[in-house]
Amino acid sequence: MKSHVIQPPPFELETLVTAALKEDAPHGDVTTHMLLEPSLQAQAHIVAKQDLTLAGVAVLRTVYQALDPAVVVTSTFDDGATLEEGQMFAILQGPAHSILGGERVALNFLQHLSGIATLTARFKSEIRQYPTVLVDTRKTIPGLRRLEKWAVALGGGTNHRMTLSDGVLIKDNHLVLLEAQGTTIREACRKAREQLSRQFRICVEVEDLKQIEQALDGGADMLLLDNMPPALVQEAVDLIKGKAHIEVSGGVTLENVREYAATGVDSISIGVLTHSAPAVDISLDVLPVSSQ
Amino acid sequence: MKSHVIQPPPFELETLVTAALKEDAPHGDVTTHMLLEPSLQAQAHIVAKQDLTLAGVAVLRTVYQALDPAVVVTSTFDDGATLEEGQMFAILQGPAHSILGGERVALNFLQHLSGIATLTARFKSEIRQYPTVLVDTRKTIPGLRRLEKWAVALGGGTNHRMTLSDGVLIKDNHLVLLEAQGTTIREACRKAREQLSRQFRICVEVEDLKQIEQALDGGADMLLLDNMPPALVQEAVDLIKGKAHIEVSGGVTLENVREYAATGVDSISIGVLTHSAPAVDISLDVLPVSSQ
Amino acid sequence: MKSHVIQPPPFELETLVTAALKEDAPHGDVTTHMLLEPSLQAQAHIVAKQDLTLAGVAVLRTVYQALDPAVVVTSTFDDGATLEEGQMFAILQGPAHSILGGERVALNFLQHLSGIATLTARFKSEIRQYPTVLVDTRKTIPGLRRLEKWAVALGGGTNHRMTLSDGVLIKDNHLVLLEAQGTTIREACRKAREQLSRQFRICVEVEDLKQIEQALDGGADMLLLDNMPPALVQEAVDLIKGKAHIEVSGGVTLENVREYAATGVDSISIGVLTHSAPAVDISLDVLPVSSQ
Amino acid sequence: MKSHVIQPPPFELETLVTAALKEDAPHGDVTTHMLLEPSLQAQAHIVAKQDLTLAGVAVLRTVYQALDPAVVVTSTFDDGATLEEGQMFAILQGPAHSILGGERVALNFLQHLSGIATLTARFKSEIRQYPTVLVDTRKTIPGLRRLEKWAVALGGGTNHRMTLSDGVLIKDNHLVLLEAQGTTIREACRKAREQLSRQFRICVEVEDLKQIEQALDGGADMLLLDNMPPALVQEAVDLIKGKAHIEVSGGVTLENVREYAATGVDSISIGVLTHSAPAVDISLDVLPVSSQ
Amino acid sequence: MKSHVIQPPPFELETLVTAALKEDAPHGDVTTHMLLEPSLQAQAHIVAKQDLTLAGVAVLRTVYQALDPAVVVTSTFDDGATLEEGQMFAILQGPAHSILGGERVALNFLQHLSGIATLTARFKSEIRQYPTVLVDTRKTIPGLRRLEKWAVALGGGTNHRMTLSDGVLIKDNHLVLLEAQGTTIREACRKAREQLSRQFRICVEVEDLKQIEQALDGGADMLLLDNMPPALVQEAVDLIKGKAHIEVSGGVTLENVREYAATGVDSISIGVLTHSAPAVDISLDVLPVSSQ
Amino acid sequence: MKSHVIQPPPFELETLVTAALKEDAPHGDVTTHMLLEPSLQAQAHIVAKQDLTLAGVAVLRTVYQALDPAVVVTSTFDDGATLEEGQMFAILQGPAHSILGGERVALNFLQHLSGIATLTARFKSEIRQYPTVLVDTRKTIPGLRRLEKWAVALGGGTNHRMTLSDGVLIKDNHLVLLEAQGTTIREACRKAREQLSRQFRICVEVEDLKQIEQALDGGADMLLLDNMPPALVQEAVDLIKGKAHIEVSGGVTLENVREYAATGVDSISIGVLTHSAPAVDISLDVLPVSSQ
Repeated sequence: MKSHVIQPPPFELETLVTAALKEDAPHGDVTTHMLLEPSLQAQAHIVAKQDLTLAGVAVLRTVYQALDPAVVVTSTFDDGATLEEGQMFAILQGPAHSILGGERVALNFLQHLSGIATLTARFKSEIRQYPTVLVDTRKTIPGLRRLEKWAVALGGGTNHRMTLSDGVLIKDNHLVLLEAQGTTIREACRKAREQLSRQFRICVEVEDLKQIEQALDGGADMLLLDNMPPALVQEAVDLIKGKAHIEVSGGVTLENVREYAATGVDSISIGVLTHSAPAVDISLDVLPVSSQ
Repeated sequence: MKSHVIQPPPFELETLVTAALKEDAPHGDVTTHMLLEPSLQAQAHIVAKQDLTLAGVAVLRTVYQALDPAVVVTSTFDDGATLEEGQMFAILQGPAHSILGGERVALNFLQHLSGIATLTARFKSEIRQYPTVLVDTRKTIPGLRRLEKWAVALGGGTNHRMTLSDGVLIKDNHLVLLEAQGTTIREACRKAREQLSRQFRICVEVEDLKQIEQALDGGADMLLLDNMPPALVQEAVDLIKGKAHIEVSGGVTLENVREYAATGVDSISIGVLTHSAPAVDISLDVLPVSSQ
Repeated sequence: MKSHVIQPPPFELETLVTAALKEDAPHGDVTTHMLLEPSLQAQAHIVAKQDLTLAGVAVLRTVYQALDPAVVVTSTFDDGATLEEGQMFAILQGPAHSILGGERVALNFLQHLSGIATLTARFKSEIRQYPTVLVDTRKTIPGLRRLEKWAVALGGGTNHRMTLSDGVLIKDNHLVLLEAQGTTIREACRKAREQLSRQFRICVEVEDLKQIEQALDGGADMLLLDNMPPALVQEAVDLIKGKAHIEVSGGVTLENVREYAATGVDSISIGVLTHSAPAVDISLDVLPVSSQ
Repeated sequence: MKSHVIQPPPFELETLVTAALKEDAPHGDVTTHMLLEPSLQAQAHIVAKQDLTLAGVAVLRTVYQALDPAVVVTSTFDDGATLEEGQMFAILQGPAHSILGGERVALNFLQHLSGIATLTARFKSEIRQYPTVLVDTRKTIPGLRRLEKWAVALGGGTNHRMTLSDGVLIKDNHLVLLEAQGTTIREACRKAREQLSRQFRICVEVEDLKQIEQALDGGADMLLLDNMPPALVQEAVDLIKGKAHIEVSGGVTLENVREYAATGVDSISIGVLTHSAPAVDISLDVLPVSSQ
Repeated sequence: MKSHVIQPPPFELETLVTAALKEDAPHGDVTTHMLLEPSLQAQAHIVAKQDLTLAGVAVLRTVYQALDPAVVVTSTFDDGATLEEGQMFAILQGPAHSILGGERVALNFLQHLSGIATLTARFKSEIRQYPTVLVDTRKTIPGLRRLEKWAVALGGGTNHRMTLSDGVLIKDNHLVLLEAQGTTIREACRKAREQLSRQFRICVEVEDLKQIEQALDGGADMLLLDNMPPALVQEAVDLIKGKAHIEVSGGVTLENVREYAATGVDSISIGVLTHSAPAVDISLDVLPVSSQ
Repeated sequence: MKSHVIQPPPFELETLVTAALKEDAPHGDVTTHMLLEPSLQAQAHIVAKQDLTLAGVAVLRTVYQALDPAVVVTSTFDDGATLEEGQMFAILQGPAHSILGGERVALNFLQHLSGIATLTARFKSEIRQYPTVLVDTRKTIPGLRRLEKWAVALGGGTNHRMTLSDGVLIKDNHLVLLEAQGTTIREACRKAREQLSRQFRICVEVEDLKQIEQALDGGADMLLLDNMPPALVQEAVDLIKGKAHIEVSGGVTLENVREYAATGVDSISIGVLTHSAPAVDISLDVLPVSSQ
C-alpha cells in the first residue's frame, strides 16, 4: 500500500519547473534553433534504461505545459509504477524545438525523483516481511523537499516530520544545551508536554539505555534510537516495548536494514533516501521519421 | 590548479538560502522554542566526519546572516580545502535558538556541495598524471545548477556549457531530426558555422567513426565521443587528433576513468558528479558549557 | 508565562514589509515630497491610544530598516508588553520624509497585530483561574498567518495546528465523506493510526456523545467538541476525562469562555482571535520642533 | 448604485491565492490524504450563515482553479449580492481531496471580504436618505488593500486615495513639520498647487475653524474634518459649503454616522470598514452522498 | 527648481538591480575569472563622455552593494547634476573582479536614465522663458516606469499620472465607446464627477473646439489638446483660458516646443522623454596601476 | 534570412507582462470603470502609423491572455513582418474594459520592440550587398535583454554574447588590469585557451595593429576592432584576414555602416540597436459601433 502520497499542487510544480527551465536556457536553445525548422514535428519516447520505481510523471507534464502546450504528453505508466529496463513510460508528440527544449529539465527531475523512489523501494523490499515502517528525514536537497518526500512515498516509504514547525524532536544538541540549563531529559519531556497543545507527540533522540529510561519517565511518546548497533537496539526494544513508539536512525544500510527490522522497532528512518539516492537512468529518444 | 571557480554573488545565495530556511521551518523551530531560553548562548563546531573536499562555507555564512546576524561564523578552512575525517572547519557562536534553527539547512547545503566536490576530486585524482580535463554536464539538480557547478570547480573540475543558451552541441536527438529534414551531419555543421557569430564553437556528439569523419568534414570544432569503450575511443583519437577537440562522455566511472584519460582525449565529461554524488558526512556539534 | 512565541525571521518580515510599502506607495509619497525639504529631520513618538497588549515592534523596525536605515527606531517596550492608554512605546528619529513614508504601513501592522494580542489577553484574563489553554485556529487573514499566530502567542495564547500539513484533524466534512465510503469514525481513527508515523496524534471533531464514544473506541488522542453548549460539554468531559485531550471550539465568547473553562476541558480554540480582532488605536505623532 | 468597483485581474488574484494555499498546506492536507480515496467525488454547498453582503466569489473560483481545475465552481449569486442567513451561493463539484484542500483558504477570503462588504452596507444603509458618500481609508490589512477596497465598493462604498502616490493629503503630522519649516497652511496649499500638475486636488486635514479658513485661503480643494463632534462639523459645513469638498473622518460609528451625514458633508471616511470589520459566518458543507 | 523628485526606496532599486545582474551574468563573468587574480584590487572612474544631466548614481551604488559591498563607491556629483563632457562623477575602489562584474549593468542603468534626464533638460531649456510645465506620460519601458519618471524629474520635468489608477483621463478611445453607449462628452464628465470622490480631477483629451466646449460644459477640470498644430492650440487657449487647466500632447519636438509654450498652455506632455530618449555616453575606465 | 530567432517561452513573457500590467494599473483603470458599462463589447485595430518591422505580437497576445482571456486577439501579420504606414496587424474583440485596460502596456512593448527591429532592419538594409553580419551587444535595457535580442533577430540581426557567462571577451579594462598583473595580451589569450574547455572561443578587443599582432600570436579566435576609423579597419583586415574572425564595434552609424562592411570585416556590432532605438508609432484604435 502507498500511504499518504501527496502530490504537490499544480502551482508549486509550475514554480519549480519554470525556474528550472529558465536555469537551463536563459536565452533559449541555441543549437536546435539554428539547425531545425520551427515547423518540424517530432515524436519521442521516454524510456527506463534500468529497473526503477517511477516518480515525476506529473513534473514531466508540467514541463511541457509550461514550455509549450502544443507538446502532447501521453503517459503509459503512472507515478509509483515499477518499471523494468527498457520499458517506455511516456510519449511526447509536438514541435521538435519544444520537445528538445524541455528534455534535460524533464530528465533531471525524473532521474532524481525516480532515483529516490527506487532506492526507497529497495529498502522497503528488504524488510517486506516485517511490519516496520520506512521513514524519511529532513536531510533533503534545498528547494526540493516536497518533491523528494513525495518520491519517498511513491517508493513505499512514509513521510516523517516535514519541517521544524510540525513536530517536536529533542535531539542530541538539545540535550547538550538542556544540560547547560540544568534541565534533565525527564524535565524536558514534561516541560514540552505541559507547554504543548496535546496535538503534538514528544519524540526524543536517545543514545543509550539510561537516556531511554529518563525519556520514558518524562512521558516521551516516541524514542529515536540514534546510531545504535542492532544488538543494542534489541535491548532497547525489550526495555521500551509498549511504552513508546520506537524508531531507529543512523547507519542503516541496504545490508543491515533487515537486521534492524527484525528487532521489532516500529520504524526506521533513513537520510540516504533523499540526500544520496543516485539518479536512475532514463532517456528521451526522438523517433526516426519512419517510426512516427 | 583550481580554474575558473566563480562563487555565486550574495543575492543569489540569499535567495536560495531564505527559500530553504522557509522550507525547513515555515513557522519556526517548535522544539527549541519550547525547551530553551531565548537568551541562551551557545557555541558549536562544524566537523568533517569523513575525508572530503569542502564546498559551501559561503552558503553557511549566508544561512546565519539571513537567520540571525548575531550568530558569528568563523571558518578555519575555505571552500576548496581538503579535510580529513575529524577536522573542524567552522565555529558558530551566538544565540542557541538561531544556531539550532539553521543547523539542518546549513548541513544540507554543505553535505550536498561537498559531496560533489569530493567526488570530483576523487575522479581528478585518478587521472592526475594526465593533462585531461574533467568537465561537468547539465545533469544537475533543478534549482542548484550554479552552486553545483561551483562545487565541481572547487573539486578541481572544469565547467562545461552552463546552459542551452551558451554553447552549440549537436546531439543524437538532433541527428535523428536532421536526418528527417534530409540534412547530413556535415551540412548541419556548416549550417551552424554560417549562421553563428564566430564566438561559438561547433560541438557534435558522435557514436562511431563514420560520424566522426562527417563531422570533421563539416568543420566541427569539438567532438563528443558518446558511450564508446576505451578501445574505440583510442581509434577515434588517432583519427581526429589535432583536427578537433575530443571529449569522452557516458559510462565513465572511477574504475575506468584512467583508461579513458590514457587514450589522449582532451576532456572527459561526467554526469555523476552532479546528479549522483552521495552527500558527505558533516556534523554540527554544540559544545557542552564547560568547553565553551 | 508566554509559551512558544516564535518571532518570524528577518527575511520573512522583510518580504511582508516591502510588499506592504510598495502597496502603500507605488511611486512614493506625493504630499510629503512636495511640501517638506528632503533634509528636514524629525522625531516622532508611537503611542498606545488605548489599553493594549503590544505586538509588532519587530515589524516596525523592519519597516524603517527597509525604507530608510537612517531612521533610528528606539523602543521603550517590547512585543508582548501590556500598555496603558497614553503610553509611548517607540521613538523614531531621522529624515521627516522617511518617517512619514512608513507611518501608515507601520501602524497598519501594529494596530492589527496588537489587536489580536489584546483580544487574546482579554480572553486569557477571563479564564486566568483555570489551567485551560487558549488556542488559535487556521482562520487567519491570508498571507499573515505566521504574524497573527505570533500575536496570539504574545497575548498569552497557544498556537494550534499551523497548517493542514502538520496535524491530523478529522472534521465534520470528513465524517460525511467517510460515511459515503462506508467508513465509521472508529475505523477512520484506526486507519489514521496505522498509516501515520507515530509522531502525529489523531484528533476528531465530534458533535454528540455517540461520536465521542466511537472516536475513543477508535483510539483518538484528542477530541474537539464542536459547537456544544456548556452543559453538554460538561457531560462530554465526564465521559472522556483521562482518555483523551479535550478541546472546545465554536461559539466561545468573552461572555461564556469562563463557563467553558469551568467544565475542565483542556483547551479552548477561538477563531475570533485572528479573523475578527478589531484593530487597536495606536498613533504616530511627529513632535513639534520645540520638543525635539 | 455600486460605483467604481474594480475587480483585481486574474493574475493578482492568482498570486494572493497561491500564496495563501501554500501558507495553509506547505506539504498538503495530511488528514484527507490518509482517510479518503483520491478517486472519491464530492459535492459541497457554500452557505451564508448570517445576513451578509457577498464579496469574494471571484477569489473562490481562483482558489479551485489554482488547486485543481477539476473542481467545478457554480455560483448562484454574484459578488455584491445581499444574502440572507441560510442562503447557499456556490456549489462545488469534484474530487473530495481538492474540495477539502481549498476549504479553509476559500472561506478565509470569503469571510474577511464579505465582512468588509457587509459592514460597509450597514453604514451605507444608515445614511441611505442622504447623498453623502461613504469612503474607505489606507488603514487596510497589509497585502490585501486591493481586495479590501474592492469589498468596500461591493458594499456600496467609494474608494478614497488608494496609495500615497495618487493623491495629495496634508495631514496633522505634515502641519507640525510645515510649522517647523515656517510654512503656514495657506502657503503649503499654494506650494502644492504650484508644483503639482493640475491633475491632483489639494486636500487638507483640519482640526478647527481657524485651520479651515487658512486652508480655504490657500486654495484647498477638499477639507478633511478630523475627529470633530457633529456640532462642530455643522459649523464647519456652514463656513465652507460651496468653497471646497468636505469630508469627515475619525470617530464615526454605526450609531452616529447618520448625525454626521445630516450636517451636509459630502463624504464620510471610515477606517473601521477595512481594519476592523468582523468576519462574517460562511460555511462549506459537503453533501451526504444521498443528496448528491 | 527640481520639483517632486521621488527616488525609489532601497528595496525597489535592489529588486531591479539584482534582476539585471542575474540577467547579465547567470553564471558569473567567465573572462574576468579566467584572467585576473581574485585578490587583485582596482580603481575605476565613471566619466561622462558627453554633456549630460546625471541620473542613476543611486542605482550605481545599489549595483555594487548587491554584487560586492567591498567595492567602495564615491560619487563626486549627485543625481540631477549637469555634467560636461569629460567630467568624472564617481570613483570605484575594490576587487577588480567585482568592479568589472557590475560594469555593464551599472552603465546600462546610468546611460538610459541619464539619457532621459538629459533629453528632458534640453526640452526644458527650450522653454525656460515660459512658465509652462513639462510633463511625462505612461509611455515608459515596461518594468522601469518608476525609475524613468524619477529621471524625468531629475531633468526638470514634472510627473504626470503615474498609473491608470491614479487619475481620470477620458481619451479618444473612451469617446468612441461613450458614443456607442449614447453618452456625450458632457454627460461623461458629469458622470465622472458624480461618481468620483472629489479627490480626483476630470481630464479630457479633445481634438477640436467643439469637444472643448462640451467638456467645459460638463465641468472638466483639465483639457488635453491632442495633436493640434500651434495655431489651433492658440485658438483653444483663448477659448478655455481660466476655465480649465490646458495641456498639449502629441507631435511636440525640440524644434516646436517653444512655439507651443508661447501659446500660454499650462503644460506640455512628451512621450519621447521616456520611450525614445537615446542613451548618453558614459564610460567606466579602470585606472592603470601607476595612477592608482 | 532570419537566423536564430528564439522567442521567449510563455512563462517568461507572462512574468514580464504581469509585472507591466501591475505597474500600469496597481488598482485598475479608474476612468474606464467609471464611464463604461462592464458588459460593453468592443473591437479595436492595432495599426502601424509608420513603416516598420514588427516585433511583439507574441507579447500582445500574452497581455490580453493575462488580463482577460475573453479578449480575442487575431493577428494579420506575424513578428518579423515588414509593414507600411497605415497597415493594421491585429484585431482585438472583447470586453471594452479589458481592451482599454491593456492598451498602454501592449503598445509600450510593441513600440519599443518594433523600434529595435525596425532600426536593425535599416542597418541591415544599408549593407545588404555585403555578407557582413550585424550583431547586437549587452547594452540593453535592464530586465528586457531577452526580448530586445529577440527583436534584433526579427529585424535581421544576429545575437552576440547574451551574457558575461557565455563568452570570453577580453576588453580594454581587462588589458589595463592584465598589465598591472604583468600579463601580456599574448599570455592572456594562452591562459584563457588553456583553462577553458575548448567549447568557447577567445575574443579580444583591440585598439591598434600592435595589439592585433599580439592577440593573433596568443591564438585569439576573434578580434574586436574597437572605435577604429574605416581606413584603419581596412589595414587591420588585411593584416588579420583568415587568421581570426573580425568584428568592428564603436562609432558605427547608419551613415558609415556600409563603409565598414566594405572593408570585409565579418561582423559589425552596434549598441544603438538596443540602447537607443526610438519607439515606432503604433496605435490601438477602438472602432465606432457602426463599423463593428
